[in-house]
Amino acid sequence: MGSENRAPVTVVGLGSMGSALANAFLEKGHPTTVWNRSPEKAEALVAKGAVSAATVAEAIAASKLVVVCVLDYRAMREIVDSLGDAPAGRVIVNLTSGTPEEARQTAAWAAERGVGYLDGAIMATPPMIGSEHALIFYGGPKAVYDEHASALASIAGAGTYLGEDAGLPSLYDVALLGMMWTTWSGFMHSLALVGSEKVKAESFLPFAQLWFEHVVAPEIPKIAEQVDRGTYPDGGSALGMQAVAVEHLVDATRAQNVDVALPEFLLDRAERAIKQGHAGDGFAAIYEVLRKPQS
Amino acid sequence: MGSENRAPVTVVGLGSMGSALANAFLEKGHPTTVWNRSPEKAEALVAKGAVSAATVAEAIAASKLVVVCVLDYRAMREIVDSLGDAPAGRVIVNLTSGTPEEARQTAAWAAERGVGYLDGAIMATPPMIGSEHALIFYGGPKAVYDEHASALASIAGAGTYLGEDAGLPSLYDVALLGMMWTTWSGFMHSLALVGSEKVKAESFLPFAQLWFEHVVAPEIPKIAEQVDRGTYPDGGSALGMQAVAVEHLVDATRAQNVDVALPEFLLDRAERAIKQGHAGDGFAAIYEVLRKPQS
Repeated sequence: MGSENRAPVTVVGLGSMGSALANAFLEKGHPTTVWNRSPEKAEALVAKGAVSAATVAEAIAASKLVVVCVLDYRAMREIVDSLGDAPAGRVIVNLTSGTPEEARQTAAWAAERGVGYLDGAIMATPPMIGSEHALIFYGGPKAVYDEHASALASIAGAGTYLGEDAGLPSLYDVALLGMMWTTWSGFMHSLALVGSEKVKAESFLPFAQLWFEHVVAPEIPKIAEQVDRGTYPDGGSALGMQAVAVEHLVDATRAQNVDVALPEFLLDRAERAIKQGHAGDGFAAIYEVLRKPQS
Repeated sequence: MGSENRAPVTVVGLGSMGSALANAFLEKGHPTTVWNRSPEKAEALVAKGAVSAATVAEAIAASKLVVVCVLDYRAMREIVDSLGDAPAGRVIVNLTSGTPEEARQTAAWAAERGVGYLDGAIMATPPMIGSEHALIFYGGPKAVYDEHASALASIAGAGTYLGEDAGLPSLYDVALLGMMWTTWSGFMHSLALVGSEKVKAESFLPFAQLWFEHVVAPEIPKIAEQVDRGTYPDGGSALGMQAVAVEHLVDATRAQNVDVALPEFLLDRAERAIKQGHAGDGFAAIYEVLRKPQS
């Protein structure tokens, strides 16, 4: 549709992410109303055509679709609860960061108030917002998502609906975050090991990058396949043998006077998997340990 | 040089890796003598032109360059010690897996016996041996490496000399191994999180792969640069703020009934970095924690 027909939207919360969201709606031609607790954050957006609502009640009255991006779920609920019945009939797309549990509780809380609710998790930085490749995960009622998918495409071209469970976006979010932090931590541990012998990170980097590309990354889809099948064939290198190499890693880490907690975690989980009968399986059998709480 | 001029080599230890090494030497035209504790392992190589030595003394007498790939450093030393003075003047390239400490001790032990010594770490699987892209790290006296580099190119086209310290190949080896295991474990943790809501690994995989490619991998060279500089600028996302998201990861992991040790490690190291004054720095400031033993 032409920009003259774009759905009106309201953006509540104008931190760097909220401002980027409002900006993207404006650029795609949506009549955009904004509100922030400290109103000076609205000024740059007003200069681009946004309407700065004097109160949050006014902001929510302005559009059926209300995108909220504030500090946390508690702040989000306080804002909406301050309005009594006014939000009923509105659709809140909550892009505030939190846990799956918080998202599910907030979905139930919204349902009680007659508020349409989608939870979302933004997998992009503020400068990426509005681009075709920006990814936002959504969860909640399919009908609500379908009604607003076209408007939401203005903030993230790669928006993805995950299912009715409002907790799924946050779950995917923390899952990707954990993967990212873990990978970076593993790389930093390797830099610490070689750095203990005064090897520059710059010298080690090309080997690390080749290793990621040719050895680490190609196993990722194989691990996924094995996890789905629940069988972990030894691809020529059994866990029992690999654990010996991880013992070398632990020993070397200790001898080089580097933080040993990460390699000790790896060895411990490998040993638990071996004790559970996976010595002859491949690395991915460790999934059977990681998927359950361990004492 | 033509294959008729290839240096004679001896390969001691004919497990799957040792056999691959001997095979690569044969294919490149080196007169190749082999020895293994259980001699039947030599049969396939003899059929390809190898000489199977009756004793390890005979094997070591056959070539100046002796490549050893056995179970562990102890086995390697026992074999050589059984020969008295015979190995003096030989060059042993020890490709047995172990720790940097073991490599350094073995280098000193070899020096006492008048044996030239290079330590090596094979960063390839047996089927890759002999290819142009196969990577073996070497450490030890530069003159010894230079003398044998051309023969060693027959087993690994991407052989790389790291320096005089015989411990460096094993150090690089365990560093890359740790990075690999950590990355895979982080991915499996993420699969466990989404799997706790019956999301198939197959469904999550495309997001994980995009995330690796576009978000995780591009930070790797930046982290290396920051570690070398010892400064960790906040690239728009300060550690203090990011730690809140890692708390969500810990909470979600616990709520979803998944092994929480890995996220707890990540959060703990972030918190230690924050306590050391890095709240306003970027993620890589955690290096300052990881590089030292933590109690």
